[in-house]
Amino acid sequence: MFTVALLMAMQAEADPILQQLSNQVDSISTEPLPIKLYGATMAPDFQLMIGLNGKDAVTGVDNIGSEAATLTTQFVLNKIKPDLVINAGTAGGFKEKGGKIGDIYLGFPHIIFHDRRIPLPGFDHYGLGLYPTPGLQNLATRLRVKTGVISTGNSLDHTTRDMEIMQQGDAAVKEMEAAAIAWVCRLYNTPLIALKAITDLVDTPTAVPEQFVQNLATASNNLAAAVFQLLQLIQSVNSIDDLFA
Amino acid sequence: MFTVALLMAMQAEADPILQQLSNQVDSISTEPLPIKLYGATMAPDFQLMIGLNGKDAVTGVDNIGSEAATLTTQFVLNKIKPDLVINAGTAGGFKEKGGKIGDIYLGFPHIIFHDRRIPLPGFDHYGLGLYPTPGLQNLATRLRVKTGVISTGNSLDHTTRDMEIMQQGDAAVKEMEAAAIAWVCRLYNTPLIALKAITDLVDTPTAVPEQFVQNLATASNNLAAAVFQLLQLIQSVNSIDDLFA
Repeated sequence: MFTVALLMAMQAEADPILQQLSNQVDSISTEPLPIKLYGATMAPDFQLMIGLNGKDAVTGVDNIGSEAATLTTQFVLNKIKPDLVINAGTAGGFKEKGGKIGDIYLGFPHIIFHDRRIPLPGFDHYGLGLYPTPGLQNLATRLRVKTGVISTGNSLDHTTRDMEIMQQGDAAVKEMEAAAIAWVCRLYNTPLIALKAITDLVDTPTAVPEQFVQNLATASNNLAAAVFQLLQLIQSVNSIDDLFA
Repeated sequence: MFTVALLMAMQAEADPILQQLSNQVDSISTEPLPIKLYGATMAPDFQLMIGLNGKDAVTGVDNIGSEAATLTTQFVLNKIKPDLVINAGTAGGFKEKGGKIGDIYLGFPHIIFHDRRIPLPGFDHYGLGLYPTPGLQNLATRLRVKTGVISTGNSLDHTTRDMEIMQQGDAAVKEMEAAAIAWVCRLYNTPLIALKAITDLVDTPTAVPEQFVQNLATASNNLAAAVFQLLQLIQSVNSIDDLFA
């Protein structure tokens, strides 16, 4: 019996997945938190839980970023103690790393933060995070997706300093949640597969917000296809560890 | 019967308070989380819970910053449903705002983030946060402390862009947790008093990490004195709302 938690930040990212599962999905209360939690029985021995960060009551937008990701991950891991967490979402890529709009990446060999600068001994490494992920190279080959370092920060744009830290960290993917989710997964000793679809290229002149809005729907559809491929693979293995072989 | 949760990030900030309460304090398990949780009966009708973020298993340093603050706040508010949250900690001040090393501030009229730049409609306001705090002016007068806008970010230093956002937001205090705590408190509809002792001045040439290390012990002692003053005041009121009159 596997229980897998699929964590996503935005409703628009999750909609293609929820639509495809609509007949199987039950909604579960998370009062008073904004988290949206759904359960779906994928197979007799495979339970999927989908956790979304939900909406901000004041602005009506999705609760994106590392604080909301921490809240959702802690809530879901504490409640359902899954065998595996999948974090699926859209992200920025890097042209210099060969990234293209619509590409899918698995976060490997680790996930870092690029906006937690704490220049004191020990705290500097704590701030950067650097959460190792399981061995995902074979999985990437089977899913025909790329691997790369994911870097997380709480801004959709980036400062010069953010870019320096991302480049020093060899980042191929920039987004706003994965490192926070990786940190909570480490606390619960739960493996994480972070799956990111590229909506925009960070190191090109076109403004990121424009690219993001333009490509969100396409990237979310690619993301849904990759998530379902991954879920099918999970149904075919005897143990979660087999995914990391 | 009041239950008050006192949330703090660093062990060194909390030590003077824990030492003074040592006879009254019980430790409560938070497994598998790093959170340190203590309970103390301050009076027959006044239960105090103290939550610290605990240590990072890899580096051994305190879990500072907004993700750890989110985790601790969610854990404590979910578990004990306090009537009031106090977030006490050390922070940077602004010389231009009249700040001095050792000053104590209450976060009022609101708490913001300065490192969540999301230039899309709605998301821009969501990113900034701007969490209103209760009316704390009378309380500040009674405690003989200052009031000001607290601004939160995940770095001990700041970029030019961070400073612009702090200045636009009229920040008098810069630290790394309060806005995340304020967000979770808002989700649980729980009032927050954020009490910050100034270890360093952000807008002076001396590097912040140097000032921080030099003044941490002094500021933590001032902070402890202010926290005990506040706890005494809480014992004297009939209702938590009386604090905000």
